[in-house]
Amino acid sequence: MENQLKQKNPMLFNPYNRAIPGHFYAVGVGPGSPDLVTLRAKRLIETAHVVLAPRSEISDESLALETVAEFLKPESQEILEHIYPMKRDPEATAKCWGEAAEIVKKAISEGKSVVQITIGDPLVYSTSSYLTEELIKKDVPPEYIHFVPGISAFQAGASLLKETLTLQEDRLTILPATDLQAVEEALESSETVVLYKAAKHLKKLADLLERKKLLDSAFLVCYAEQGEKERIFRDIKKAADENSGYMSTMFIRVSNKKWMTEKI
Amino acid sequence: MENQLKQKNPMLFNPYNRAIPGHFYAVGVGPGSPDLVTLRAKRLIETAHVVLAPRSEISDESLALETVAEFLKPESQEILEHIYPMKRDPEATAKCWGEAAEIVKKAISEGKSVVQITIGDPLVYSTSSYLTEELIKKDVPPEYIHFVPGISAFQAGASLLKETLTLQEDRLTILPATDLQAVEEALESSETVVLYKAAKHLKKLADLLERKKLLDSAFLVCYAEQGEKERIFRDIKKAADENSGYMSTMFIRVSNKKWMTEKI
Repeated sequence: MENQLKQKNPMLFNPYNRAIPGHFYAVGVGPGSPDLVTLRAKRLIETAHVVLAPRSEISDESLALETVAEFLKPESQEILEHIYPMKRDPEATAKCWGEAAEIVKKAISEGKSVVQITIGDPLVYSTSSYLTEELIKKDVPPEYIHFVPGISAFQAGASLLKETLTLQEDRLTILPATDLQAVEEALESSETVVLYKAAKHLKKLADLLERKKLLDSAFLVCYAEQGEKERIFRDIKKAADENSGYMSTMFIRVSNKKWMTEKI
Repeated sequence: MENQLKQKNPMLFNPYNRAIPGHFYAVGVGPGSPDLVTLRAKRLIETAHVVLAPRSEISDESLALETVAEFLKPESQEILEHIYPMKRDPEATAKCWGEAAEIVKKAISEGKSVVQITIGDPLVYSTSSYLTEELIKKDVPPEYIHFVPGISAFQAGASLLKETLTLQEDRLTILPATDLQAVEEALESSETVVLYKAAKHLKKLADLLERKKLLDSAFLVCYAEQGEKERIFRDIKKAADENSGYMSTMFIRVSNKKWMTEKI
């Protein structure tokens, strides 16, 4: 009987159909376009008692909050912004997310459901990792903590570029562009390299790519799926001459590693 | 005026609000759970004239088709299954997808909209890359070809495991488990390694991980978000003793590369 019902409507038995009181959800909301939110994320946001939105101290608005604006229920929901430092300082980071964890722990112990919304995916360079680490430190049981995957910026960028990331035996390496030595290593051992935070390092990256004869295989996408701010560059040298902005992802398609002869 | 309307309802101006006649969309539908489909994918599937579902010759059913079953409109839509070979044979692959491209080209030239649904993301180890390559060869203009990103198996698996993939300066490498030498290289140059198609190589992988003292940092997720088939292993040696199935992803968290001292 249950199986028949399940087949008719699998959603009825889905634990993510609504946010459960006393539970915490780190929910990826994708790159910025509201329609790249998953149905699971939408439902959890709509049904949560508390929605926690991270906002960096250098931003006027939370991009995650803008992305899900149409799913919020401000008349019945608590919507909290949590401002976090844009410093590469482990102590300041732990302090900030420790405070957020305190708020979350209080809410769930009062029987509220809490959703933290986060741009992209909650386990790929996301503040959700800091927050959930602090929740665990505060003895929130892991079974009350959930993650909902979201479309990451590199996926949105590849779709805009219409460029294959991996096929057959290809290796894909994703890393921040900050360490040029690590970037060079990645280019030598991967068929595709994706660089986050590329904008601040464009001139050095263009030099490296020219030296490796990869300038024609590199693309830059800025603010993918963020409306009018979105830009695509197929000429990295040209991109380096402009100010292409903070949220930028570089794609380098080094080669294609064909199938090995062995069977699947 | 347009800007005001846009703010009120950004969807009104969204080119992905519905499948446009004469256009082709390669649409990622996520790992298998219907609620991990994005709103964009759902709308395109609901409004397409033709839905093309790939099915491997060794499967009885198309997993992509099962995933989106509740969004299909069989009374008004053409739903086509396209069977593809499970061989590592470039010629057979090109022939198969050349035939599918012929069907797609005919449909869009008749003014129909066509959505190819694909499990995961259409640009990460997906048949969509073969199909769109053949469409380009058949002179379908790139502006009539679109990609919609989807949640990839590695994201679904990480969310189930509740394991951070990347933070700070971490490097993530994704590759198939088929080439053990490539796996060992990836372990040496990445903080996190994700291996697709791990199930058939578990004993060798367990030996490698033991030698690298990484057995305790490795996890296996099989059939993530595919209902009752889903399994999580936190003991790779135990997983190697069982038959864990074709759709399996291994996660190895090697270390954490902290922030460099330089500013953001």
